[in-house]
Amino acid sequence: MQDKKNSVFIATSIDGFIADKNGGIEWLNMIPNPEHIDAGYAAFTKRIDALVMGRVTFETVCGFDIDWPYNKPVYVLSNSLKEVPENYQDKVELVNGSLTDVLDHIHTNGHFRLYIDGGTTIQNFLKEDLIDEIVLTTIPILLGEGYPLFASLSKALKFELVETKVFLNQLVQRHYIRIR
Amino acid sequence: MQDKKNSVFIATSIDGFIADKNGGIEWLNMIPNPEHIDAGYAAFTKRIDALVMGRVTFETVCGFDIDWPYNKPVYVLSNSLKEVPENYQDKVELVNGSLTDVLDHIHTNGHFRLYIDGGTTIQNFLKEDLIDEIVLTTIPILLGEGYPLFASLSKALKFELVETKVFLNQLVQRHYIRIR
Repeated sequence: MQDKKNSVFIATSIDGFIADKNGGIEWLNMIPNPEHIDAGYAAFTKRIDALVMGRVTFETVCGFDIDWPYNKPVYVLSNSLKEVPENYQDKVELVNGSLTDVLDHIHTNGHFRLYIDGGTTIQNFLKEDLIDEIVLTTIPILLGEGYPLFASLSKALKFELVETKVFLNQLVQRHYIRIR
Repeated sequence: MQDKKNSVFIATSIDGFIADKNGGIEWLNMIPNPEHIDAGYAAFTKRIDALVMGRVTFETVCGFDIDWPYNKPVYVLSNSLKEVPENYQDKVELVNGSLTDVLDHIHTNGHFRLYIDGGTTIQNFLKEDLIDEIVLTTIPILLGEGYPLFASLSKALKFELVETKVFLNQLVQRHYIRIR
């Protein structure tokens, strides 16, 4: 049986925001990066089978003036979207219902190592203790306001630090796995 | 003229709390520490002249069943306390008023390198961009609820990462200085 794993790979400010109060993320690139290092993103995505993201993140990505950035299947969690917008029908699959049912469905498709993305989606997975791994990169800024990565949980969740890396001499990346 | 510096040395959960929802801090010691390493605390306090803390932190420390833990002058910020409780009169000085006035007074006493402690006090100093250095140690747990280290700010504050250390193979300490 395949190992199932739900992973988060994300960057925050020192005070834990993933976007500023206007949704802006330009501060993610505040440290000059002339060689375009990716802080381990390509290596991370190589070891996942599919992405799971919320509708808001999906629509945000659609709004970027870039080519579709994912080369793995993408599942979009939404109770409001009834169908995938044209142009994206070969790229994403809509899923809804309980996270347990959603995961069962995704696993049935042969996708076991999942990249869980988007603030609300990550928070919802954490609330049900469904996150196994967090790769957390901290940008050296206090934003003061914005969209937080973490939200309240009904119980504390312990993690194990497996690795720490520093990129561009300024970005600290901590790699945690859940201890159950 | 002496260099003035306001420093923070504190630990938080991965989600940025300094105490759990009941004010508990036992999770700070969740990683076995048989050799009682101090994560740089003694070295840090050697390079400060005095502490500045809020009333709540002061009263919390007074409530601990331990000897007075500080060997430097302690300034307690309070608008409600009218006098220092007996037993502490040779240890702490009450200060109040604007932080700028408080700092002027402390500097006049010859104390320039200050250890700013306590959640509300740190937040108030950050709101006025009066923190020069943050040494932030992360414990590998998501508490889910509690007393946050950071609060809202009227503007973003950029920092420079000067050092990263790992203690007990699990505690990540990031050392930031404010870039102005």
